[in-house]
Amino acid sequence: MIHPTPIRVRYSETDQMGIAHHTSYAAWFEVARIDFLEAAGSSYKSMEERGFLLAVIELNIRYRKPALFDERLTVRSWLNSVKPVKVAFQYEVVNEAGDLLTEGTTVLGCLNREGRPQGLPKDVLELLMKAMEE
Amino acid sequence: MIHPTPIRVRYSETDQMGIAHHTSYAAWFEVARIDFLEAAGSSYKSMEERGFLLAVIELNIRYRKPALFDERLTVRSWLNSVKPVKVAFQYEVVNEAGDLLTEGTTVLGCLNREGRPQGLPKDVLELLMKAMEE
Amino acid sequence: MIHPTPIRVRYSETDQMGIAHHTSYAAWFEVARIDFLEAAGSSYKSMEERGFLLAVIELNIRYRKPALFDERLTVRSWLNSVKPVKVAFQYEVVNEAGDLLTEGTTVLGCLNREGRPQGLPKDVLELLMKAMEE
Amino acid sequence: MIHPTPIRVRYSETDQMGIAHHTSYAAWFEVARIDFLEAAGSSYKSMEERGFLLAVIELNIRYRKPALFDERLTVRSWLNSVKPVKVAFQYEVVNEAGDLLTEGTTVLGCLNREGRPQGLPKDVLELLMKAMEE
Repeated sequence: MIHPTPIRVRYSETDQMGIAHHTSYAAWFEVARIDFLEAAGSSYKSMEERGFLLAVIELNIRYRKPALFDERLTVRSWLNSVKPVKVAFQYEVVNEAGDLLTEGTTVLGCLNREGRPQGLPKDVLELLMKAMEE
Repeated sequence: MIHPTPIRVRYSETDQMGIAHHTSYAAWFEVARIDFLEAAGSSYKSMEERGFLLAVIELNIRYRKPALFDERLTVRSWLNSVKPVKVAFQYEVVNEAGDLLTEGTTVLGCLNREGRPQGLPKDVLELLMKAMEE
Repeated sequence: MIHPTPIRVRYSETDQMGIAHHTSYAAWFEVARIDFLEAAGSSYKSMEERGFLLAVIELNIRYRKPALFDERLTVRSWLNSVKPVKVAFQYEVVNEAGDLLTEGTTVLGCLNREGRPQGLPKDVLELLMKAMEE
Repeated sequence: MIHPTPIRVRYSETDQMGIAHHTSYAAWFEVARIDFLEAAGSSYKSMEERGFLLAVIELNIRYRKPALFDERLTVRSWLNSVKPVKVAFQYEVVNEAGDLLTEGTTVLGCLNREGRPQGLPKDVLELLMKAMEE
């Protein structure tokens, strides 16, 4: 399952180089994986309410071409690996012309409210396993 | 009591107009009032730990001149009014040449953890009253 | 003409109070007015390319109820006044239940690339006058 | 040369997990490397004015422990490699107790105003070579 999330570059996301600031992509990846979880039948919001937090423990981004103000981008996201306490996502950001602008990965650790590692809820684990195989 | 807080404009705070984005000032005001509370003998961090939250209920900014990347600014902040459930701050942002770049005010409401209005802790109220008169 | 712009609260827009940080609204207003300009038949991007910049010279926000992570909001925006060198927008943020969360206004000044005031391009001025009367 | 840059966690940098949002570190790395360039005898601001831009082409972060609101952190930065068109920085974020919170690297490409790769100015190249060997 590869999930597409539309993003439109905000003015506040640009910098004085005239392009989207490099930190914006990390925020877009976050929007994309929350969207992915929803498309997979889960909900990050309800996970947090049940006491399961997904904290970023690793972030890697390769910037190939800049994204510009007002551009309509697509963040394509998919699962690289799913383990009980760790989930790895991969992302590609493409523009309307289909150019690959950016690639990235994040690894997320499942934590309880005290910040200690814990296994994903069983239902979420199953949905993610299924989404990875699709 | 007028408290000066130094701020240096970050690259990530600029936009493609080549100036500090207008939302940056609101974040700087927040830095300044947390610094003010400390200078007044209190601590916003410990207030929150004791269950007293200060939420912004009003924000007003007048932008006179732009702030530029890497500029060393001073946010001067002071109290406009102190009431048991409401505190009003005023701010001025000046650059190294002494030019007034921006003026602003915020009104903050004191809330409990459930988001309901409550009076400021007595010690904080007294410190703020004193800081306003100084 | 009252234009609705959908906004979904991003995780990166929350703060440790568990609500959307108060600076997020100013960024959403910006998204809304760029969307408004497009709906009115203009384009902020092309205005900038032609050398007409709209800089925020005044920002006012009243916060009534907090916005929460993942909420689907609507920013309703309209024109309060249109003058050759100054445009005033008004905004309301409502949630899916129709609750009014926030109200705000911004005044924008039309500048050239050197940051000097200049009149709006004639075509934009006419479109905005029309949009205000609708 | 290992350069220490002080950072204090802003309230606006926290998220509803109660910790500094993971994108904040990338902005702090940027503050740190601009500070490093100054300590090395150069200035990123003047580089840009001369038409030499440093764009992030790679970003990698490992998050070990969370940073909390109001914490006083130190970002230690140093050069990993210096080539005419590419510069690699490494970073460590530590708290006051000396705990290592985060590690990261960025690779920056030197571009001209049109976004094309170009060699670093000779004086900057020499200063960075020297700073790497120190």
